[in-house]
Amino acid sequence: MIEKKLIVDVCLSPQLYPAYERGDTIVVVIDVLRATSAICTAFEYGVKDMIPVATVEEAVAYKQKGFLVGAERNGIALDGFDFGNSPYSYMTDKIKAQTVVISTTNGTQAIEAARNAYKIVIGAFTNISALCNWLLLQNKSVLLLCSGWKNRLNLEDSVFAGAVTDRLMNSEKFTTGDAALASLFLYQQTQQSQIKFFHNSSHSRRLAAMGLKKDIKYCFSLDKTKHIPFLKGDRLVV
Amino acid sequence: MIEKKLIVDVCLSPQLYPAYERGDTIVVVIDVLRATSAICTAFEYGVKDMIPVATVEEAVAYKQKGFLVGAERNGIALDGFDFGNSPYSYMTDKIKAQTVVISTTNGTQAIEAARNAYKIVIGAFTNISALCNWLLLQNKSVLLLCSGWKNRLNLEDSVFAGAVTDRLMNSEKFTTGDAALASLFLYQQTQQSQIKFFHNSSHSRRLAAMGLKKDIKYCFSLDKTKHIPFLKGDRLVV
Repeated sequence: MIEKKLIVDVCLSPQLYPAYERGDTIVVVIDVLRATSAICTAFEYGVKDMIPVATVEEAVAYKQKGFLVGAERNGIALDGFDFGNSPYSYMTDKIKAQTVVISTTNGTQAIEAARNAYKIVIGAFTNISALCNWLLLQNKSVLLLCSGWKNRLNLEDSVFAGAVTDRLMNSEKFTTGDAALASLFLYQQTQQSQIKFFHNSSHSRRLAAMGLKKDIKYCFSLDKTKHIPFLKGDRLVV
Repeated sequence: MIEKKLIVDVCLSPQLYPAYERGDTIVVVIDVLRATSAICTAFEYGVKDMIPVATVEEAVAYKQKGFLVGAERNGIALDGFDFGNSPYSYMTDKIKAQTVVISTTNGTQAIEAARNAYKIVIGAFTNISALCNWLLLQNKSVLLLCSGWKNRLNLEDSVFAGAVTDRLMNSEKFTTGDAALASLFLYQQTQQSQIKFFHNSSHSRRLAAMGLKKDIKYCFSLDKTKHIPFLKGDRLVV
């Protein structure tokens, strides 16, 4: 019998991170709509590294120093920056071998909350298989950190956390915390009943109302990249 | 067509309450294992009122003044008090027409977090039908506040929140926030697959290990009482 000692758990809001913090755990930061999906895309399109910053002020300071900067709040790309939060905006040669600074409503806040973790990696449906296969090889506990929406739970990040939990639990290496189990059941329900769960997600509705259905479709696509961006110092790299 | 303007949402940890706080909303405090189940039991057995306090120090102070006091931490009844957190401990004539002070690991912390809400009521499987029928008559938005476990999500409170959401959504009066939808899907999954979900709950396992299976069974029983305790000033009353 394999000794079950690794834990997979889910933190459904960056604000709860201190309650879930444990040493020696890999933290997967999740912001399906759209920050972590966009970050994965940027690495697929050849960005050298990315600097996540929590505040617009920091983004402005980097812009003034001549960096390429993506900045978004409440689903809207901020004026005066190079990119917003749409994965499509990063599908460009402009970013190739460049450093890009990024600040978003929720995703970069989650990175900030977990900054002192043992290891931070970026997860999205667009890199889910690469991510899960890599996690299964690490022999470390895993905390799936959902960015949510302004400290509230959101549906798409929770379902993604359930999808990852599902893949990790197949290995029998892991045991679950309650939040991982809840996310797993939630994910199973969306699979079994074939609910188009993202139509019910408040942020999907918000983005759809902004004409961003194409973004939503892309962010729910599996395995667009094999990259797993991780935080090294203050930069995301692969 | 009925105008959907009432919101039912779920706050999965007392720590997230500020992110969900809205005026004019009924807050249902939930701590299935076992504080809110025990509180409902106490009112069924004729307690006059209950004073929830967050700290053990306050509980001691009330005890010294001669009050009946229930105090529990980490599933264990504290020495020197009259009751712990077991519903069975309140099934006694001793509490009839008396005031009982109560302090628990999570439940009384949730009450404390929401103390300034428009209205706070107590929910448990043991009063679920009375609670839902009453909520449906109020024409107010509803926030289901899960006590969780030390600011982390727990399975039984989340599933209960999903069960209440399910009953409220049948009325077509309510629209859901993402956390309510996630809890609803979670509840539906536990119903459909007939998973004995509470065997998977970390706190169920904790209590079962303490020999408290009888408590668990009772706390998952439906409709043992029609009382809906609510906070009036600093006291729970019916």
